[in-house]
Amino acid sequence: MTEAYLIYASSDRDPNLFYWGNFRAPDPFLALKIDEKTIAVVSTLEYGRCKKDSTFSEVLLWSDVLQVAMDQSVKDNCCKVILHLQRAYQVSSFIIPDDFPAHLYETLRKLVPIRFDTVFFQTQRRFKSASEVEHIKTACQLTSQAILYARAILKKSRTDAIQPFLYYREKVLTSERLRSAIECYCLKKGGHCTGTIVSCSQQAADPHCEGTGPLCANEFIVIDVFPRLNQNGYYGDMTRTFLKGVASIRQKQLFACVQSCQRELIGCICPGVNTKDLMQFAQNYFEQNGFGLRKTSDVCEGFIHSVGHGLGLGLHEYPSVGTNSVVLEPNMVFTVEPGLYFRDFGGVRIEDVVQVTSTGCQLLSRCPYQWIL
Amino acid sequence: MTEAYLIYASSDRDPNLFYWGNFRAPDPFLALKIDEKTIAVVSTLEYGRCKKDSTFSEVLLWSDVLQVAMDQSVKDNCCKVILHLQRAYQVSSFIIPDDFPAHLYETLRKLVPIRFDTVFFQTQRRFKSASEVEHIKTACQLTSQAILYARAILKKSRTDAIQPFLYYREKVLTSERLRSAIECYCLKKGGHCTGTIVSCSQQAADPHCEGTGPLCANEFIVIDVFPRLNQNGYYGDMTRTFLKGVASIRQKQLFACVQSCQRELIGCICPGVNTKDLMQFAQNYFEQNGFGLRKTSDVCEGFIHSVGHGLGLGLHEYPSVGTNSVVLEPNMVFTVEPGLYFRDFGGVRIEDVVQVTSTGCQLLSRCPYQWIL
Repeated sequence: MTEAYLIYASSDRDPNLFYWGNFRAPDPFLALKIDEKTIAVVSTLEYGRCKKDSTFSEVLLWSDVLQVAMDQSVKDNCCKVILHLQRAYQVSSFIIPDDFPAHLYETLRKLVPIRFDTVFFQTQRRFKSASEVEHIKTACQLTSQAILYARAILKKSRTDAIQPFLYYREKVLTSERLRSAIECYCLKKGGHCTGTIVSCSQQAADPHCEGTGPLCANEFIVIDVFPRLNQNGYYGDMTRTFLKGVASIRQKQLFACVQSCQRELIGCICPGVNTKDLMQFAQNYFEQNGFGLRKTSDVCEGFIHSVGHGLGLGLHEYPSVGTNSVVLEPNMVFTVEPGLYFRDFGGVRIEDVVQVTSTGCQLLSRCPYQWIL
Repeated sequence: MTEAYLIYASSDRDPNLFYWGNFRAPDPFLALKIDEKTIAVVSTLEYGRCKKDSTFSEVLLWSDVLQVAMDQSVKDNCCKVILHLQRAYQVSSFIIPDDFPAHLYETLRKLVPIRFDTVFFQTQRRFKSASEVEHIKTACQLTSQAILYARAILKKSRTDAIQPFLYYREKVLTSERLRSAIECYCLKKGGHCTGTIVSCSQQAADPHCEGTGPLCANEFIVIDVFPRLNQNGYYGDMTRTFLKGVASIRQKQLFACVQSCQRELIGCICPGVNTKDLMQFAQNYFEQNGFGLRKTSDVCEGFIHSVGHGLGLGLHEYPSVGTNSVVLEPNMVFTVEPGLYFRDFGGVRIEDVVQVTSTGCQLLSRCPYQWIL
């Protein structure tokens, strides 16, 4: 008798499931992990491809399993299949992730021993292997190429005597147009983007605003690109802030503050450091420079997000570099992305990806740049 | 005292949550629905954007709620916030979807009355309003434009005396290249694609194989495009099967069988019809034409998926047109996509989107085409 980890999810959406079988499917399917063995149960639709392309140790056909599991007095088909697997693999109890579907859990918990293991599922991918680091590095190279491509468009764009807008190839350069150019660029190089941010001026005051309408001269333009590589599912993530035209003293101060904060943060990263201390460091740094968190009735301003997030098969994964406590260890990979946001002024964010090494950290993304174009 | 529907999810991934607030966020957040009122609790990162852009009746800041909820003896922050909401809105019990995170459910069920409502969450979006139908139609127009764009590339491509490959602009036309062209086309027109299928020959025998390598003459080429509109989050979905060169008699038979099956299916659709009868109809149709389901030890062949799936804010949503029983009602929207798949031969699939009307159905996607180019 043995314990089995159990996932029921779409591997397109669940990086843990993808990690087990290296197989992408849009609809949910069942998978078990017993010691080093991984077993998938899939529909006729996915069976052939899963057999051929995945790295699951075993691939079973859902309808086959259901047929032999038919004798049970359980109504729910998914439960039937799981109970059959329990017998077939002599599973003493199942271990599930926090985001396991609650309804299935509610039925199962009355039939089989089942428990959560938050830490296992949150952290099974926390140490990146050499090949994973290479994949993330490749994805980060794509982000920096895409950023430089966007920079070249901004650089070539022209301003106008009457309007504050930027013009590129005789037409107004909008967030939508630059975003579409960036995303096409990534597509052609093998990476899928969604939600690429190209936000200008006051829109950039909102870190997750994708941006809409004309890009303007003399304003911050935040570009945040996070493609997923088609070949292996790993993400890159990079943000650069540009300004076309002339920067004011306050814009320069704001930029310099974010840039130096990022440098200091990267300098602090080494094994043993606690992520919440990095968060505290950034908060203090901005506070001391006069840019602390402020909240009014309908907006938050200043440094309003966390320092960063783990990156790999998930875009936002363990460890989160925020107020939670995580002690850094070698081969953790995460973003470092301090930013400042003011409603009437816009925003600045600079984001790179680091890998913790035995003595400090190494940058997986490189894109030195001039921000004023 | 009143009941409250409760979701904890990322609205990028959960169409029900997006439906409540018309607001996309990558990280999970809490939302309640009490009668017609919807309430979101979001982080500082999303607060300003959610206040400004979403249609939630109320937007609360997570840290504010947590602060006033601090007195409770509960450890989990998310539970604390939910318990506070329970008091603040006098909630007698919470109603959750099947895919609610199990761990949060396990903590909550010991503290508050909580129950599942599979049907509500599965079906709250089942009847599409006139404006939703318009959005889906727009997305379907994009799919047909993209398909015609791909068709033009196939049409212009050339064959070669030595190799079976297609050549376009002096270079081999691969699945990757055509997919990237289609996806860039959609991007420029305001739709994001992921996983667009351009699969040729034996690869097309696997309905979810995205396709890789050179496209070949005289073979089936399956193109399945399903962009999501950036503007409103609705999906289109269309599949067409092409062949460049000369089709064999068997290829023509296979194509004709799928095409006529699709026409017959569309002709059957009207209120009162059961989806499982549509599935049975397709199975019988293919069986009678000598193309029934076959399974060997490592592959399934024939008609190996369901007839279709609901389409809207989700790519695969209610109703599934498979072996489950759903009685069709006016304003349900779903795909009709019979297909046949043979290992040594490839695959054929034709997919359109229909809206059930009071007397039958109307096609939301239109793309008449010649399949032999």
